[in-house]
Amino acid sequence: MDERFEKTISALKSSGGDWAILTQPDSVAYATGLVSSIEVGQSPFTGGPATAIIGVDGTCALVVSNVENTADPAVFAERYVYDGFSADRYVDQASSYSASLNKAFAALSVKGRIAGEPQSFPIAAAPRISAAELIDISPSLNRERAVKTEAEKAMLRRSAEAAALGQRTLYDILKAERTELDIFSDIRRVVERFAGERVAIAGDCVSGVDRTAAVGGWPTNRTISEGEPVILDLAPRVKGYWGDSCSSVCIGAPSDGFKRLFDASQEALEHAIAILRPGISIGALDRQIRSVVEKHGFVYPHHSGHSIGTSVHEWPRIVPEETTPVEAGMFLMLEPSAYDPAHGGARLEWMVEVTSTGCVPVAPFEHRVSI
Amino acid sequence: MDERFEKTISALKSSGGDWAILTQPDSVAYATGLVSSIEVGQSPFTGGPATAIIGVDGTCALVVSNVENTADPAVFAERYVYDGFSADRYVDQASSYSASLNKAFAALSVKGRIAGEPQSFPIAAAPRISAAELIDISPSLNRERAVKTEAEKAMLRRSAEAAALGQRTLYDILKAERTELDIFSDIRRVVERFAGERVAIAGDCVSGVDRTAAVGGWPTNRTISEGEPVILDLAPRVKGYWGDSCSSVCIGAPSDGFKRLFDASQEALEHAIAILRPGISIGALDRQIRSVVEKHGFVYPHHSGHSIGTSVHEWPRIVPEETTPVEAGMFLMLEPSAYDPAHGGARLEWMVEVTSTGCVPVAPFEHRVSI
Repeated sequence: MDERFEKTISALKSSGGDWAILTQPDSVAYATGLVSSIEVGQSPFTGGPATAIIGVDGTCALVVSNVENTADPAVFAERYVYDGFSADRYVDQASSYSASLNKAFAALSVKGRIAGEPQSFPIAAAPRISAAELIDISPSLNRERAVKTEAEKAMLRRSAEAAALGQRTLYDILKAERTELDIFSDIRRVVERFAGERVAIAGDCVSGVDRTAAVGGWPTNRTISEGEPVILDLAPRVKGYWGDSCSSVCIGAPSDGFKRLFDASQEALEHAIAILRPGISIGALDRQIRSVVEKHGFVYPHHSGHSIGTSVHEWPRIVPEETTPVEAGMFLMLEPSAYDPAHGGARLEWMVEVTSTGCVPVAPFEHRVSI
Repeated sequence: MDERFEKTISALKSSGGDWAILTQPDSVAYATGLVSSIEVGQSPFTGGPATAIIGVDGTCALVVSNVENTADPAVFAERYVYDGFSADRYVDQASSYSASLNKAFAALSVKGRIAGEPQSFPIAAAPRISAAELIDISPSLNRERAVKTEAEKAMLRRSAEAAALGQRTLYDILKAERTELDIFSDIRRVVERFAGERVAIAGDCVSGVDRTAAVGGWPTNRTISEGEPVILDLAPRVKGYWGDSCSSVCIGAPSDGFKRLFDASQEALEHAIAILRPGISIGALDRQIRSVVEKHGFVYPHHSGHSIGTSVHEWPRIVPEETTPVEAGMFLMLEPSAYDPAHGGARLEWMVEVTSTGCVPVAPFEHRVSI
């Protein structure tokens, strides 16, 4: 049995549910291996989210439209396929989905306590369960997902390598008088070549003092000038697993102000790697990372990092109020930063793998204050 | 009042509902102007879909997370904003969304008959309504959306121009020994420059006999050889409105087989434009387009076209069993095609605007059998 599926069953049991109905794409990918494409939003040929129905006894079924159904042998679930697309007629996809879902419920004798994901729990399943009765499986599933399996570690290392490749490309192609979109296009091309397919890319690509001081944003036709800072926060999803990374670099000689921002972030990142080990509480880790940046006179209005997997941001998030301890086998993003309206922003992010004694950066790339 | 909002109210009335709860991103964009980013899937910082609550009296509210909330003045809805992201703590987004949704229901006195979209209707609203009582607003809303407003026509023309620009770029940059992904990267760059921002692109980019004969797929590292056919089905979303287009072209001298596929598609597209006018039934239109391709000895396993707007595929779809008549003001995609396992595939697609007497191609670009 796939190790991720075993962990999903454990989560179901600890949630107190008899059956799990999973509808978030990242959870469905985790539990069943079905990686849905996300690059153009929801398909117009579906009547509901691709849905996994999982029993404590190890039953695993998928309700998917005919356009989502895949022959991928890694997906072992029994399929309930409905017509989302027809060449001949208009399809009422919502009714088709609902009928297929209810057929699966009947065939599998789904009853008892249901654990699901309220964000996208289907109204089609509501006759069997009220909103008040629905158990939210997320806290249990989040905990199971936080420590990665060996297969996941390999996937995450590859995604981190895709991100690092994109970051190294930045140093090669960044030049004054180019636009943010052109820079981003060059980087995307290299990442997609590496993956051999289209890749969803989250993150930021911003330039100039005002835009980098504002933390982030997507690239525009803004032309980058000599002396300006650039933040590239690059998070590519390769085969269902996300990488993430961030660099901050000046074209040409950096201002003293930008250099201070960069130095604060770099020292905080180095400190984070030095202290991160199993047992340290996430909240304490967060406060220690922030304190380095604060010592330099700056603050940042976001987390110090986060877990990553089939979602780009997973639990635990590295935030002050998180009390859970770090565990070996977690993959965490570390992204301390510093912002100043007068000089811009610098954020430096690496992925690290938590080992039994500390942590090791995964596919690290150089952070440079300037090129 | 925005004309699209008026049409949404009309749809609500004709559905028999007192309140509409819209949760599909394309419907929310249509009714309220809120264009959600879709390029990297669902945000991990939301607890449910961005939700519009609309009353027959003209009430319009939006329940959105703090990361989705926008200052765009085109979005006139009253906001109920919940915390999806916090720098300090783990947020239970589903509970935050649910609380905000219920706060809005109470403040607006939402009661009576509810019309919604079962694909994504929130379980959080289920205590007020059972699945059986929920009116599906889609058939009424689809009808209202089919005839475009003047503002929508301008948006669609721009999106069609983005698609045409991408197609013209294809002829400039297509060369033997390049890969599908490299070709696609060049085209995406030009489209994004035109839009001034990242653009979601649906469609296909495939090369070679086998891949083009299989209708479509996303680009890979496959190297394209001299003499091979390429299908580029390019559908970019610019500011919430989709363009669409398809070209099929051979690098160098086309085989006789490919030329026959191309000629069949071209004749069918020309015939479609010649006969398309208000009053013709969609089913009859579909059969006439198909019959041209069949006369050449080919068939195609998909629709002959479809409407387009804030979704890339809208009702009506041009399929044999659709009896609704064409109306002036519709924007339709026409995409006849021909496939042959021995020679590949050719699909030629243009957007047309239906006028009072016929139809006019929108941002047409040249279809070439070879370059």
